[in-house]
Amino acid sequence: MQTFDTLSGIFNERFSKNHFNISPESLYEPCNYFLSLGGKRVRPVICLMGHELFEPIGEDAWNAATAIELFHNFTLVHDDIMDDAALRRGQQTVHSKYSSSTALLAGDVMMVAAYQYLSKIKVNTLKPILQIFNKTAIEVCEGQQLDIDFEKKDRVSLKDYIQMITLKTSVLLAASIKIGAVLGGASEGNCNHLYEFGRNLGIAFQIQDDYLDAFGNPEKFGKEPGGDIRQNKKTALLVYAMENSTEKGKKELQDLLHTDPESKVANVLQFFRNCGVDAWAKELKQQYMDTALFHLEETAVISSRKKNLTDLAEFLVQRDY
Amino acid sequence: MQTFDTLSGIFNERFSKNHFNISPESLYEPCNYFLSLGGKRVRPVICLMGHELFEPIGEDAWNAATAIELFHNFTLVHDDIMDDAALRRGQQTVHSKYSSSTALLAGDVMMVAAYQYLSKIKVNTLKPILQIFNKTAIEVCEGQQLDIDFEKKDRVSLKDYIQMITLKTSVLLAASIKIGAVLGGASEGNCNHLYEFGRNLGIAFQIQDDYLDAFGNPEKFGKEPGGDIRQNKKTALLVYAMENSTEKGKKELQDLLHTDPESKVANVLQFFRNCGVDAWAKELKQQYMDTALFHLEETAVISSRKKNLTDLAEFLVQRDY
Repeated sequence: MQTFDTLSGIFNERFSKNHFNISPESLYEPCNYFLSLGGKRVRPVICLMGHELFEPIGEDAWNAATAIELFHNFTLVHDDIMDDAALRRGQQTVHSKYSSSTALLAGDVMMVAAYQYLSKIKVNTLKPILQIFNKTAIEVCEGQQLDIDFEKKDRVSLKDYIQMITLKTSVLLAASIKIGAVLGGASEGNCNHLYEFGRNLGIAFQIQDDYLDAFGNPEKFGKEPGGDIRQNKKTALLVYAMENSTEKGKKELQDLLHTDPESKVANVLQFFRNCGVDAWAKELKQQYMDTALFHLEETAVISSRKKNLTDLAEFLVQRDY
Repeated sequence: MQTFDTLSGIFNERFSKNHFNISPESLYEPCNYFLSLGGKRVRPVICLMGHELFEPIGEDAWNAATAIELFHNFTLVHDDIMDDAALRRGQQTVHSKYSSSTALLAGDVMMVAAYQYLSKIKVNTLKPILQIFNKTAIEVCEGQQLDIDFEKKDRVSLKDYIQMITLKTSVLLAASIKIGAVLGGASEGNCNHLYEFGRNLGIAFQIQDDYLDAFGNPEKFGKEPGGDIRQNKKTALLVYAMENSTEKGKKELQDLLHTDPESKVANVLQFFRNCGVDAWAKELKQQYMDTALFHLEETAVISSRKKNLTDLAEFLVQRDY
């Protein structure tokens, strides 16, 4: 069992090879540019960790991890077009550096490249892996569509919000560890527990992300808090505050959202604190984290082998405060 | 061996079932809308015909044909975004009826749905089918990128143009018939001949398309000719005229392309006629058609079984004049 940092290092080295044809350069240079921006590589590494619970890492696990990271990057490139985001990891996004058409095609070709790696998997496990991957890929698209739909809605329920982040964020983390486990020959019961570990961890992670964007320590968080508030993004915090205020409070919050950005962030944060959103978010995150750890606990593997996964979970969800 | 019309009818009936989840409707209604616009279904039918050369059509062939048609529709939805095309088959495109974001996601989800059908194929042929499909999918993206690149270039060689249409259009036709043949248990030699049949037929078809857009009979062609000329699209005709004119002629043609659209079409057509582009295009198309038919001839199957494929080839390439 290797730590996150060790596996991430080895994965990054392997992943830095060229995944595409040489020509046309106008298509592949943008792909290579985007992949070179890096990232934490959480999804491929959790796939490798899920695999290592049961079996040493072999070619199939590397291929699956590579496919997962390529798929994740495809979603980022397309999401950036939809959000018209100028920056990703502090660098220009593909559509802003090149063009929307090129970004669209670069994303498409990354998705197909993901399937190229999957198709290398030994034939006896290829079908179940493809089925998990396809189902997850579809769910991620559904989650992104729901996120777009929510932007146009005045009110979103907490249930709908959790459903959206489950699809958009958590199922890929869940599928990543499950795919690693399936390739490691894990039983169906263990695979399902690990899936639930990843799914709940993903939700806790997203709630944490929403929390940090509002209440994070700017020095540790690396950016000024309040970005989501400035954009009126539907976050767990806003959804909770809307659901748990009086009619008068709802009206007040709705009005605040349409005020001057300068004063908006401070006023909305004060509103959040007044109705206890900060404590609630920490509590909700902890609930999902506890459920995640319960499923890891239930996975029939000796505890010492799970330590690196527990550490990763704590790192992802406790980071920066 | 069934005719194109028979197979197309049966395929359309099967294809009219729902391929997606129910929710979110905001994602799947646009997908279903686009698929309902119809089309000739040439690619899935040629897949079925390639299969029927060797074996009666079974579930695997239907699944492959469905995957191919879903993939083709994914490319159309994304191409329409890139071209900002308002209409497809006389109806609104997905991005103009809904939004670019929804069209992007609808395309993405259609591509994954294609892989869902492929993953149903029996495990003994799944790998070779995935490999052909993946390679082709990547080539189609490359062809689209080259087409975009050509728009910005003043001059494109005939060789580069043929390479672009091969990737953008022909390889999917070629892969469709090859996939059908592989699933039918055809030998490698036969599969390769059928691939070359499809590839050359696809090129002949595209040259025909370019020809009809310029010289087609408006009554039979169903639209006013000259659309490509109006848009200064790099077609086989323009590429040939540029390559085969004197420096003075090249300059004249270049200037004509920047004149008033009213007079441009007639003047460019006259220029084309003066340097014999119309006869040349017919000749070039016939060369590719002959090569296609040669490869069909070389396929080791009794001639009578190939008749419907020959008829389809003639229909596709001789249509409307």
